[in-house]
Parts: sequence; structure tokens; C-alpha cells
Amino acid sequence: MARLLRAATWGLFPWRGYCSQKAKGELCRDFVEALKAVVGGSHVSTATVVREQHGRDESVHRCEPPDAVVWPQNVEQVSRLAALCYRQGVPIIPFGTGTGLEGGVCAVQGGVCINLTHMDRILELNLEDFSVVVEPGVTRKALNLHLRDSGLWFPVARGKGPPVLRLPSPVRRAPDPGADASLCGMAATGASGTNAVRYGTMRDNVLNLEVVLPDGRLLHTAGQGRHFRKSAAGYNLTGLFVGSEGTLGLITATTLRLHPVPEAIVAATCAFPSVQAAVDSTVHILQAAVPVARIEFLDEVMMDACNRYSKLNCSVAPTLFLEFHGSQQALEEQLQRTEEIVQQNGASDFSWAKAAEERSQLWTARHNAWYAALAMRPGCKGYSTDVCVPISRLPEILVQTKEDLNASGLTGSIVGHVGDGNFHCILLVNPDDAEELGRVKAFAEQLGRRALALHGTCTGEHGIGLGKRQLLREEVGAVGVETMRQLKAVLDPQGLMNPGKVL
Amino acid sequence: MARLLRAATWGLFPWRGYCSQKAKGELCRDFVEALKAVVGGSHVSTATVVREQHGRDESVHRCEPPDAVVWPQNVEQVSRLAALCYRQGVPIIPFGTGTGLEGGVCAVQGGVCINLTHMDRILELNLEDFSVVVEPGVTRKALNLHLRDSGLWFPVARGKGPPVLRLPSPVRRAPDPGADASLCGMAATGASGTNAVRYGTMRDNVLNLEVVLPDGRLLHTAGQGRHFRKSAAGYNLTGLFVGSEGTLGLITATTLRLHPVPEAIVAATCAFPSVQAAVDSTVHILQAAVPVARIEFLDEVMMDACNRYSKLNCSVAPTLFLEFHGSQQALEEQLQRTEEIVQQNGASDFSWAKAAEERSQLWTARHNAWYAALAMRPGCKGYSTDVCVPISRLPEILVQTKEDLNASGLTGSIVGHVGDGNFHCILLVNPDDAEELGRVKAFAEQLGRRALALHGTCTGEHGIGLGKRQLLREEVGAVGVETMRQLKAVLDPQGLMNPGKVL
Repeated sequence: MARLLRAATWGLFPWRGYCSQKAKGELCRDFVEALKAVVGGSHVSTATVVREQHGRDESVHRCEPPDAVVWPQNVEQVSRLAALCYRQGVPIIPFGTGTGLEGGVCAVQGGVCINLTHMDRILELNLEDFSVVVEPGVTRKALNLHLRDSGLWFPVARGKGPPVLRLPSPVRRAPDPGADASLCGMAATGASGTNAVRYGTMRDNVLNLEVVLPDGRLLHTAGQGRHFRKSAAGYNLTGLFVGSEGTLGLITATTLRLHPVPEAIVAATCAFPSVQAAVDSTVHILQAAVPVARIEFLDEVMMDACNRYSKLNCSVAPTLFLEFHGSQQALEEQLQRTEEIVQQNGASDFSWAKAAEERSQLWTARHNAWYAALAMRPGCKGYSTDVCVPISRLPEILVQTKEDLNASGLTGSIVGHVGDGNFHCILLVNPDDAEELGRVKAFAEQLGRRALALHGTCTGEHGIGLGKRQLLREEVGAVGVETMRQLKAVLDPQGLMNPGKVL
Repeated sequence: MARLLRAATWGLFPWRGYCSQKAKGELCRDFVEALKAVVGGSHVSTATVVREQHGRDESVHRCEPPDAVVWPQNVEQVSRLAALCYRQGVPIIPFGTGTGLEGGVCAVQGGVCINLTHMDRILELNLEDFSVVVEPGVTRKALNLHLRDSGLWFPVARGKGPPVLRLPSPVRRAPDPGADASLCGMAATGASGTNAVRYGTMRDNVLNLEVVLPDGRLLHTAGQGRHFRKSAAGYNLTGLFVGSEGTLGLITATTLRLHPVPEAIVAATCAFPSVQAAVDSTVHILQAAVPVARIEFLDEVMMDACNRYSKLNCSVAPTLFLEFHGSQQALEEQLQRTEEIVQQNGASDFSWAKAAEERSQLWTARHNAWYAALAMRPGCKGYSTDVCVPISRLPEILVQTKEDLNASGLTGSIVGHVGDGNFHCILLVNPDDAEELGRVKAFAEQLGRRALALHGTCTGEHGIGLGKRQLLREEVGAVGVETMRQLKAVLDPQGLMNPGKVL
């Protein structure tokens, strides 16, 4: 609120402003009243605690609270809110589950946070067409629960974590990273996760988006109500909005492609003498066209932490966690081929399990990796970096990263979606120690630059947010950034949508 | 040439114009000399026959020749050509193999056609990373020939047809539709084809693009030299340029994702009592997670034509052509499951073949479908429509389409990539009969509207080009088209890139 006022009074921001038209104290009240007129009084909050909850995510970026938080109940309200903010020149920050990892919800210029989680309906399910339409409050787990007897599921999953605590607004708790994110939020950040090697990322699985544009107009990126599998009709607006991180509009519904539930699942793990051997195995498995559903890598530091945390007795060595989906018969062949390949690469301890409980046990280390990492330095905050390189460059960058980690004096472990060349370094940091926080940021930046030098990207799945804007410039070059700026400028001419992010 | 002159003299087009700065006859000579200065005299042509060859594709749109054709030898020349045209306000039409199906190369405002086929190098092959970088002159078949001993291949294929005749420029012959298109051209149109149900479309398989922007600047959509599997870094520029049909820039190199060559292939066919039974089988096969590589549909008219053309004895009934890729063992299971499913749906004649020659024989009808269709009315031109609907709506639209076909008095048969809900009606038309041509266009438009009414798209893979601009407006609505217009306006402010297409 104070900021809304300041904006108008001191002219700090380019807000034409509702607030400036009237006398000082009243200004912002008028604006808030206008918000309340749209969504109802109980769905607007300017309480400090609520604003602070909405100004942070799971990153190390400090909290920048919005000036107000609103909970629209339907798309018409979102549209009216956007139009209101647009007329008054007030920034908008879309908010889902708050599980982002790059500061995407920080309200760096203040403004109104639009929490979309009250819109939580599954609007349409087309089983024969393998598609579903969900509102922003629907999480991946909620969707899969809804689908449980349909024979279909949605496989794109951000890591592994506990179900998000869904407290009544305005009180809610941000969950751990990798937890149960909103599907629309995942579309907004271009998320992917452990199943991407087989099922693709959000970019591959979003068929259509309903978007409220900055001025309140409603856009259906592939046309209203459409849910075809492919199209060559005009510019790929769906692709443009997936991964735009709330900077071009508010996603109010997402049409997703569903997949058949596999008849059977097998999990497997194996330890390797070196990072190179683990990555070579991955390449050979992919070259052999084994349709692996997940292939995750944990380094020896991570394995050691997992042993301690989960009371396991796994080899303290670079380890692959695999999962196969298919018919009973197909799985046996996949397992056999994989075992041959990993053994040729010097793997030991090749274990596998079919029953759900045993699978879960076998994957305990991977499932608990985040908590095991946190337990390495109790009381510290975890920060998950994110880069992706061509798979052939993985051994090189993993070895370099370990050296950098040692040199930095930081505590960190590595976990990766190695089938995509994507990996994270989970760093532990005392958030009150500014010097250490600085070293974490420097380390993450160095890692990003290493990925860029190896023809990779500074983010495989977490997005640019606040922290990687400079790396993005280095990644796509001057013409790339200029092109992105042109797109932003034409779609959000006032620069009101989630300002300060991506570009 | 005459048009370049007219443009300047009569002020018909918004060309600031080189030509207008000097005396009449000299003007165009100057411009052509400037083109020659960039690419060399032998790589520029203003001959009528050459211009006419470059003003048509395989559609029923009449030829609109460009004013000049140039063959750049490298990206620097493309960049200089674009900058030259930009300064002079002259339209540019990119040209690959000329196998488009919606009039994408018609020079409706004249201008310079940039034939990119002399740039035909495979620039980079990364076997471990499953990626390759190709220039615009590289066709799908040329790439797969190059890859033949690598264990990898590029599966996205526009239909089936004979190798394109690659005559020395400026003399070349446009091949049949579905023939061997340029990979960059396929990226530009968002092509897909028979393997999309398993391997995805160009949208899913392009990792990076090198694009010469209208003013000559060079853009690497995912950053120069980068070839990672996934990214969440900024706006998806690659996705925006794939399918932009040459209206935003010239694609001068494409980085593609490669796939492992399957260990074995099995082909199969089966006839059905009804369209519904064939489509139900398709849905059931997909729901059973059988990883079918191709699943093609031919209607009874097409089958009858194929029997006549290829001297076959197939059932004159709705027929599916399937192909499975995998290990020997996996294929047996896939076949068995498929046979169970199709038999439950009343299929007869389930035949399959493993050896390459037998496979080819089994698929003869599908492979020769285009020629068989042409043979239904010798001397006529074939026009392939293209729509895509949610798969559950296929039976409905196929039945309606047959009724429309009968009502229209046109000769046509249906062939479809039924696993995606995508199908074509191959219409035969006497190109000199304006009235019949009118009926063909009306029929195609009606088919597009039927697809739209069933939540589908007016084009699954051929693009919008000239002929479907009105349908695109109906498909994405006013806000969708306005958003596309904004993107076009900001990236091509003078409207010089392939004007009159898409929007």
C-alpha cells in the first residue's frame, strides 16, 4: 500500500495512477475499493503477512511483497482486474502455488498480486482425445487423483516432494521445491522434471492456453475450446506463452495432453565408478532406444547424505535411478538391455523392483534427496541451481562443478535429470549470512556460464525469473534479447505484467 | 521486373524504392545489379520461366511470379540480400523445394524470391547428443542418407513420394506433394506427416533455428551453437519461428533432434466395416499405449483407386496402415495387442510383414495413394486439403466430408494420419476449369469450417499460406489474429517478409 502511495506521490514508477487523481490517503483506498468491487471484499488483502507470503518463492531472492493480494474466483474477474490495473498503470504479478525457484513472484515494482488458486476446477476432460482443461488452482497431483480410474495420467512432474499444504487463503505455506505445483504455473515457467526424457516438458504437453492479456482481453492461444493434437495454423501462440513466466499475460486455463497409464512400472538403481560411466550408460540406453521413463543421477555427496538421512546403505558413488513404463513383457526386455549396458560401463549393485512399495523403497534416496541435502546443514535454506547441456558435455561440467564447489567452500550436492542433460546443484546457505548468500549467487552464475560455454542453457526448467536475466542475455545474444524485448513491448506495452522478470 | 517498375512508378505498393530514385528503365537494372553484387551475376535471374517456376507450389493457387530470383551461397549473402531489400522496401519470398501446398511461395506483391537450396551443407552432427544442424538445401532424404550408418535418423516425414528431381538451378521441377521437402522448409511450415503420432511434428523436433531477420540481422532462436534437449530460458523464439511460413524471417539453418534407428520394423494393414470401427481401433491402440509409429487411414474410394492403380486386390473398405518400431520382441507384443484390438472392432484381413520388401508391398496402396488418386481422373491436378480434429470427432467429420463430396460433384478420396486426428481429402480438378476450381475451393473451405466446428484446426500440417487466412481468423478469433498481427508488425515492421501469407 505504502508503495502504491509512493508511486503516485513521488512519481517513482511510471504509474499514471488512480492514486494521483485524488487526495493522498484516499487514493489507495479507492484503488483497493475498486479491486474489492471486482472480487468481493473478502478476496482482497493488504495485510503485511499476506503480502509477504506472496512476495517470495523458494529461491534465495529476498521477499519483495506486492501492495495488495486478490483472489479472483473466475476468469471474468481476472479480466476485470487486469483491465483495472491496466487503466491505472499498476503492475500485476500472477501467483499460483508459490513454488517457483527463480524469484518469479517477487513484486520488484510493487503492484497487485493475483492469486489464481481459487480457480481450481477441472473444466473439461476428453478421455478419447487424451486431453484435459484445468484452471490455475489445479495441481499435478490433484489432476492425477481426478484421473485415477480413467486409464490416463499427466506425467510432467517437477521433481519429487510432499503434497502442498493447501491452507485457506490468505494463509498458506509455500511448499518445498519440487513439490506439487500448479499446472498453469508449470505452463508459465515451462517446467519439466523427471519424466521429461520420455513424455516431454510442458512445452510438449500444453495444447492450448486461456490467457488474460495485460489490458484484460481474453486470448485462447489455439482458439477457444480447441484441443487437437497438432496444428500448423498461424504463429504458435501457445508456445510463446508457455515459459513466459507471467510477463505477457495471466494464464487462466491450460489444455493438457494426457498419456495412457503404463500397464506396469519397474524401478532400478545402479552405482558407477565415475560420473563418466553413469553418463555413458545414459547415452547408450538412449541410443539403444530403450524408452526409459526416468533416468536420474545423484552424485556421491548426495548419496552419502541420503544414506545418513534415510538410514540407507547405498554405495557412496555416482548413481543412476531409472524407471521403466510399459507392458510386463516389454519391461523385462528393457530391464535386460539396461542391465547389459550399465554393466558394460562398470556399474555395480544393479537392483530393480516391480511392486509399488519396493519401487518406492529402491528410490528412497531420490525421493528424499531434497531433505537429505537440507539435513547436511540443519537450519540452512536450500537453493537448487538449474542448467542443461548437451548430454555429451555432462561429465565435463559435472567434474568442473564439483571443483568449483570445493573452491567456493559451499556445501552442495548434485542431482540431475540426466537423460535430458539437465541437472541441479542443491546448495545450502544461511539466508542471514549475506557473504555466503553472495558466494551462492556467484557460484550459480559461474555454473550458468559453464553451461553456456558448453553449448547449453542457463536454465533447463526453473526459468529466468529475477536471477538469470544477465545469463539469458549471454545465452541468446543481443539480437535474441532484442527480439524478446520487442515481443514483450508489443504484448505488454506498459510493462505491467510481472515487471523485472525474464528481461 | 515489370512489377518492380510499376511499384515505383504507379505507387501501387508501399516500396520506398530504389527504383524511384533514378530514371525509369534504369531503376530496376540498378536494383538487380545490387542483387548481383551480393551473390554474383550467375545467381540472379529475371527470366520469365524461372520466375514462374518460383511463383507456384503444389497448390491450386495460380502462379504469382516474383520479380527476380536469387540463389545465395551462404548466410552472409542472405543477410546482405535481406538488408538490401529492407532498405529499398522490396518484398522477400523465401523458397526451398517449392513443395508447399497452400500457396506459400506465390509472390502476391512481387518482390525477390530467395531460393535457399544452394546452401545444402550438413553443418554439424552430434551423435551422442542426438542432434544435427542443416542448411535449407538439405532435404529429409538427403539427411537420412547421410545418417545411414550412424544408428540415428530423422523421422518427421511429409507423406510418401518419390525423390525430388534436383535439377541445376535455375531449371528445376516441383515434385509431387508429400515428396522430399527441405528440412528448413518443413520447419518454416510446421510440417509433420506419417510418423508424428510417435515422433512428434517439426514443432517438437526443432531445437534451434538460425534466422535472417527482415533487416538482415542474424538471430539464433536458442542462442548460437546451442543444441540442448530442453530449456526454460526466456521466450520460446524457436517455437515462434517454426510454422511462421517465411513471414517473420528467412530460416538459414535448423538444428534438429535425431532419434535412434529402430532395431526392427513391422508393417501391418487391416480393413474395417466402417470408419467408426477404424477410428475406434486407433483410439484403443493409443489408449493401450502401443507405441505405434504410423497409423494411416485410407477410405474405400482411395482403396478402390489403389487397387486399380497398383493392380492390388485389397478390400474396398476403410483401411488402416500401421507401422511399429522397436526390438524384435517388443514388436511381437505390439502386433499381438494391435491384432486383438482391431479384431474386437471387426477388422478383417489383418496382415503384417517384417522384411523390408514385404513391408513395402503391404503398404503399396498407401505409398502410391497420391498417384492412384491422380489416376482417378487422368490429366487433372490433385489438391490435398488438410484439417485436424480431436480424434473422437474423426468418424463424424469423415462421414460429413463424404456427404459434402457427393453433394459437390467433385472427385476425391480420403487419406489421414489418423493417430493425430489429421486427414486430407485429395481432390481432382481441371485447373483450366474456373468453375470447378471454385467448387474445390468452396469444398476445402467448408471442410475447414467443419473441422473448426468440431474443436479442430483448419490445418494440421500444410499451413495457412494464401488460402486459409479467413479460416485462421475464425479459428483463433479476433484477439488471436490481433495478437499474431502484433507479432508480425513488430518483427517485420515494413511487412516485407512473404507478404499476404498467414495473416
